[in-house]
Amino acid sequence: MTSATNGTTNGQPDAHHHANGNVDPHDLWPAPGGPIPGADGPSPLGTAGFRMNHTMLRITDPEVSIPFYRDVLGFRRVMTLNNGPCTVYYMAYYYPDEKTGADIFKHMQQRDGLLELVHVHGSKGRKVENGNPPESFGFGHLGISCPDTVAAEERFKAHGVEIFKPLGIEFSTKRGMGVADDDNDDELTEGFRKVFSRMIMIRDPDGYFIEVVPYGAG
Amino acid sequence: MTSATNGTTNGQPDAHHHANGNVDPHDLWPAPGGPIPGADGPSPLGTAGFRMNHTMLRITDPEVSIPFYRDVLGFRRVMTLNNGPCTVYYMAYYYPDEKTGADIFKHMQQRDGLLELVHVHGSKGRKVENGNPPESFGFGHLGISCPDTVAAEERFKAHGVEIFKPLGIEFSTKRGMGVADDDNDDELTEGFRKVFSRMIMIRDPDGYFIEVVPYGAG
Repeated sequence: MTSATNGTTNGQPDAHHHANGNVDPHDLWPAPGGPIPGADGPSPLGTAGFRMNHTMLRITDPEVSIPFYRDVLGFRRVMTLNNGPCTVYYMAYYYPDEKTGADIFKHMQQRDGLLELVHVHGSKGRKVENGNPPESFGFGHLGISCPDTVAAEERFKAHGVEIFKPLGIEFSTKRGMGVADDDNDDELTEGFRKVFSRMIMIRDPDGYFIEVVPYGAG
Repeated sequence: MTSATNGTTNGQPDAHHHANGNVDPHDLWPAPGGPIPGADGPSPLGTAGFRMNHTMLRITDPEVSIPFYRDVLGFRRVMTLNNGPCTVYYMAYYYPDEKTGADIFKHMQQRDGLLELVHVHGSKGRKVENGNPPESFGFGHLGISCPDTVAAEERFKAHGVEIFKPLGIEFSTKRGMGVADDDNDDELTEGFRKVFSRMIMIRDPDGYFIEVVPYGAG
């Protein structure tokens, strides 16, 4: 489906480090280094109006999860819908023209950035797979961005949030982030270690990871 | 953390159905029925500028996944970053003021709706937990919205996408959506069955579910 390949057969990119100025922004296999901005042109015609509307996570207890997302992280409730065996809670941050959850609700499908929390009735106490190794390999995290991570970290501490990786600590797969197949982070670039030290990793009441990144992180 | 409760102790809301006109939009336990728009006020002061920036999913083969998200779903590549043991691909749909991935990259943290695909090098062939029962209970799906689901479904067929639940089919937990704790969808409301029949459920190359919803779905 694509001609962009480095020609290796084991899925590993070349270890050769090169400056970003000379890389092909369409390349699927860049060498380790800094971020390479994309250069895709216009969207395919058949995808006009497509939006990255929402991400759905199952929750086991809305009495804990809704206050966490609403009162600690500041999400606003867009709508609530009991479908019988489950209740759906859509939440989002305001766009500039929105003042209430009902404002978002009016055009909720024409918009990015919704979080859909689905409470499966009777699931309280059930084990939730957060998608991270070693238990599982899949979903990684939600990423919340904010202008002031120092203030955000203080806020999380004041609210008793589980801080999995505080500011100032560099990346380590021992901390369970699961980015290396052999659970060994020796190969992580210096650049990424610095970027990651500026992020906070917290966990929600069900154990899902939430990465909190500063504006201008990368 | 909240006083909103229906007073039951087993996490099950009342089965009593009532009209939406009389419900409390702050209630955590509405009865089965239609959507109840939220009524939260301004965001907490300490969360000013927080954005639902991204969702991270691990992928096992960028040669398959990037063309799927880019050429079939129409996501644009925002940036690519090889961190050593993994390569990160940020993708998104354009906002009106953006024309290339580099435009998005400039303000990528101040924005909603990014998809972060992380290729863990050497993970090709590894089993991916998509978060859905019965294998696991966690992440559910990405939700993509679009103005014309009929055209979208034709597009998916033309590209050989796995269509897990086509248009016109009502919800069934037998199809593995995992919204009922007892794997029984008998209690699903008529309203939700109708809404769901208007959605398409597809799967990405790693088996993650993607719900494709029309504008004005709910």
